[in-house]
Amino acid sequence: MNKLYYLLIFIPISFLSKEVFHLSPILTFIFTALAIIPLAGLMGEATEELSVYLGSRLGGFLNATFGNATELILAIFSLKAGLLEVVKASIAGSIIGNILLVLGASMFIGGTKFKVQKFSKNSINFSLSMLTFAIIGVIIPAAFTDNITVADVNPMKYENLSVLIAVIMLLIYISSLYFSFFTHKDIFGTEHEALTGKWSKKKSIMVLVVATIFVAFESEFLVSSIEPMTEQLHLSNLFVGLIILPIIGNAAEHSTAIVTALKNKMDISVEIAIGSSLQIILFVAPVLVLLSLVFTPMALIFNKYELISLVLAVIIANKVAYDGESNWLEGLQLMSVYLIVAVACFIVG
Amino acid sequence: MNKLYYLLIFIPISFLSKEVFHLSPILTFIFTALAIIPLAGLMGEATEELSVYLGSRLGGFLNATFGNATELILAIFSLKAGLLEVVKASIAGSIIGNILLVLGASMFIGGTKFKVQKFSKNSINFSLSMLTFAIIGVIIPAAFTDNITVADVNPMKYENLSVLIAVIMLLIYISSLYFSFFTHKDIFGTEHEALTGKWSKKKSIMVLVVATIFVAFESEFLVSSIEPMTEQLHLSNLFVGLIILPIIGNAAEHSTAIVTALKNKMDISVEIAIGSSLQIILFVAPVLVLLSLVFTPMALIFNKYELISLVLAVIIANKVAYDGESNWLEGLQLMSVYLIVAVACFIVG
Amino acid sequence: MNKLYYLLIFIPISFLSKEVFHLSPILTFIFTALAIIPLAGLMGEATEELSVYLGSRLGGFLNATFGNATELILAIFSLKAGLLEVVKASIAGSIIGNILLVLGASMFIGGTKFKVQKFSKNSINFSLSMLTFAIIGVIIPAAFTDNITVADVNPMKYENLSVLIAVIMLLIYISSLYFSFFTHKDIFGTEHEALTGKWSKKKSIMVLVVATIFVAFESEFLVSSIEPMTEQLHLSNLFVGLIILPIIGNAAEHSTAIVTALKNKMDISVEIAIGSSLQIILFVAPVLVLLSLVFTPMALIFNKYELISLVLAVIIANKVAYDGESNWLEGLQLMSVYLIVAVACFIVG
Repeated sequence: MNKLYYLLIFIPISFLSKEVFHLSPILTFIFTALAIIPLAGLMGEATEELSVYLGSRLGGFLNATFGNATELILAIFSLKAGLLEVVKASIAGSIIGNILLVLGASMFIGGTKFKVQKFSKNSINFSLSMLTFAIIGVIIPAAFTDNITVADVNPMKYENLSVLIAVIMLLIYISSLYFSFFTHKDIFGTEHEALTGKWSKKKSIMVLVVATIFVAFESEFLVSSIEPMTEQLHLSNLFVGLIILPIIGNAAEHSTAIVTALKNKMDISVEIAIGSSLQIILFVAPVLVLLSLVFTPMALIFNKYELISLVLAVIIANKVAYDGESNWLEGLQLMSVYLIVAVACFIVG
Repeated sequence: MNKLYYLLIFIPISFLSKEVFHLSPILTFIFTALAIIPLAGLMGEATEELSVYLGSRLGGFLNATFGNATELILAIFSLKAGLLEVVKASIAGSIIGNILLVLGASMFIGGTKFKVQKFSKNSINFSLSMLTFAIIGVIIPAAFTDNITVADVNPMKYENLSVLIAVIMLLIYISSLYFSFFTHKDIFGTEHEALTGKWSKKKSIMVLVVATIFVAFESEFLVSSIEPMTEQLHLSNLFVGLIILPIIGNAAEHSTAIVTALKNKMDISVEIAIGSSLQIILFVAPVLVLLSLVFTPMALIFNKYELISLVLAVIIANKVAYDGESNWLEGLQLMSVYLIVAVACFIVG
Repeated sequence: MNKLYYLLIFIPISFLSKEVFHLSPILTFIFTALAIIPLAGLMGEATEELSVYLGSRLGGFLNATFGNATELILAIFSLKAGLLEVVKASIAGSIIGNILLVLGASMFIGGTKFKVQKFSKNSINFSLSMLTFAIIGVIIPAAFTDNITVADVNPMKYENLSVLIAVIMLLIYISSLYFSFFTHKDIFGTEHEALTGKWSKKKSIMVLVVATIFVAFESEFLVSSIEPMTEQLHLSNLFVGLIILPIIGNAAEHSTAIVTALKNKMDISVEIAIGSSLQIILFVAPVLVLLSLVFTPMALIFNKYELISLVLAVIIANKVAYDGESNWLEGLQLMSVYLIVAVACFIVG
């Protein structure tokens, strides 16, 4: 069994910390975060198992759409709590987390075992090309606004613009699924290892449902402890959204990517990092913009820090995939860039 | 006969609208725009036909230099009318129009007929490399100025800088013609289909002269209706320059690029989009800066919106040409980015 | 003998100009600059000769670390004189000087003799990848600060951030040496021509020591004449740091790169330009940040002009190395971009 699952013990601990002993919000935040990590892993595993029974198209769709369910649930509760800045930052943070930290750690740790690790450029090129265009799409509105005055003058027009872009992004997302599963399905090999269906269909559904319910509860705990925690620790919302939340939301994928890198299956590690970033930008972000209309409308106009992070993510992802090879030094450099972003955000942000 | 030529009927209609019935400037603008589209097509066709009779060097030069004559004439009348912001925006707009809209539509429509369309990376690499350096050249002055204060402090020094850069760009343009037609002419194949000279030399010259004269008249009509139209419709000069004028100026090339894509000659479609962008930046823009000295000197310092558009154009052109392949989804993504730019410019600009 | 060495005559001339005849600081600056050029060449040659006697690892380390000793010494004296803005600009200027001017001139001059010059993409890919990540690392803090208010509010936190980033950069530098000389040494061929040891070990050491001492003296002369010279000529510190000092510091490498290009050894020319840029960013810049703590702490947060220059350097270096070929027109374009940066900096900066 995956060692991550020992962390499930933090489900009762976080509950006791929050509801019974009323411990400090910092402790509650940590316990809840530790509880979410294995739950996210279970959700991912159950989604993959279930997809075996649904056939390649519906299964692929399920995988593509619920792969970042934890991030989505966490963001919905943040939206509900009015933490718009945290939600926006966490979208950018999830992408740099995937490309700099998840991929960097995979390349570094994999590289300590294998001198050079190769991966197919072609299979990644499709996702990478999509990611490049998608990120260009979401940074355009920021280019057309002055960050400072966004809030004041006429927020309505920025919200309208965001909704329009969200709709375009979702249409591109649906088109890309149609492309992958219908018109060009032959160019996508069996990327993932053939799953043998170690869980029954019924068990997969049960695990998925139960884990989702627990993630939802824990997400509400986590979100409610963000504000008191940031006040006590003098952290900025930007730091929480850009660095801390994505580390929690990506932890399960992070662990999978490193394990596959250690098995010298770098193709899968790269696909996890880039594919996950693509889902965030084409599916999670637009869904959040549309859902925000129910709570407080969120104009998805990134600030300077988020923009830079997104642009870096695109440049580095393209640079890394360019030669189809990785080694420990490349991994170390990716992690260093992440560390610099995190430190700069902590000190200045 | 090309179906576009039916639009020639709008030459008398636009004349009647403007001079006889004094219709609303919006209608005059639309009629004039519809008249310019087939005229630009005729000018392009006559230039190509004429080049057959001039031999490969002089013909190539003619084609390279007058390929964007419509844009040039339109811009000169805008300059004369003092619409400097419109002219500047139309330079950037012509480039994103070519790369996002013309190329995107070609790839999308071609891709609905052919699963994957291939084009030679090598033949495009030269133009693409030139385009990258040229765009870097024109964005440098903007980096060295603060947009807000450009107009106030000492406009003279920005005009001097623009003139210097225009001269450097023209020298690079002349060098590139020398490179293409003398020192390295063997690396350029017969890019275009061999023209059989369906028009006589005399007919080509006549068509070119007559079409140019009509384009000049219609351009004057069009430009004179811009200001009353933008006022009535509450459009910004940025939107007119960045989106509307380039669509009119590029319509003929647009139609050619789609037709060649449908014949699975993607090489030509890509070359039209990238080659035309290159001509705009290395020839049309510097000529406009120098001509502006006769009217009101125009400092070619792009604003934030134009810069972003140009940078996007470079990144996307490089990304698209990278793998030498296209499909309908790639085309759709290019058009989506264009749509987002247009919508953002319309709502916010 | 290398013709550059005739310039050694300017050592006594600069001394007389400064200490005996007290000539204008402009003349002293010029004479000192002309004296530094051959000294830098001697230091480079002595370092290479010495490395022959030290074995490949220690010799390689010596070469990698003292390759930019002149720039380092010049910057240390500028730091000591409190010219922080000049030092910062000269870091960015050295990189664009190497990539636009040194490489551009090599490609142009080499290209007038050879129609197409080829170089191995693979051997350059490692340095280029390192350079891309390193430059991304140093531009992040600027993205997280507002240039205007950096100096005022709380400089301490920017200095702390700079020191942290300097330490990370040095760790990456040490890791890259470990990578090159230990874990992956087989992928680096004998880049440089086998040196036959034309100088004895003793002579190499002597030349290195004597040249270093003279460079130090001349650097002090040069730095002390910067302020009176810029005042008399109305030059900005930015122009001196970004354009003038790097031309002096890089002159010897410049001459070597052109000579190797004329021998059609483009691999070495490209490696000089990119390798030297890499040393500046990973070794010289962090050492200067740490040394500045002894004098006036220097926060290595680049301003807008320097940032743009660095970003251009990365983009162009990647674009140039992409196809592994060069010709005269490509060289001319690189030099044109440099000229535009220099002119823009002179007029506006």
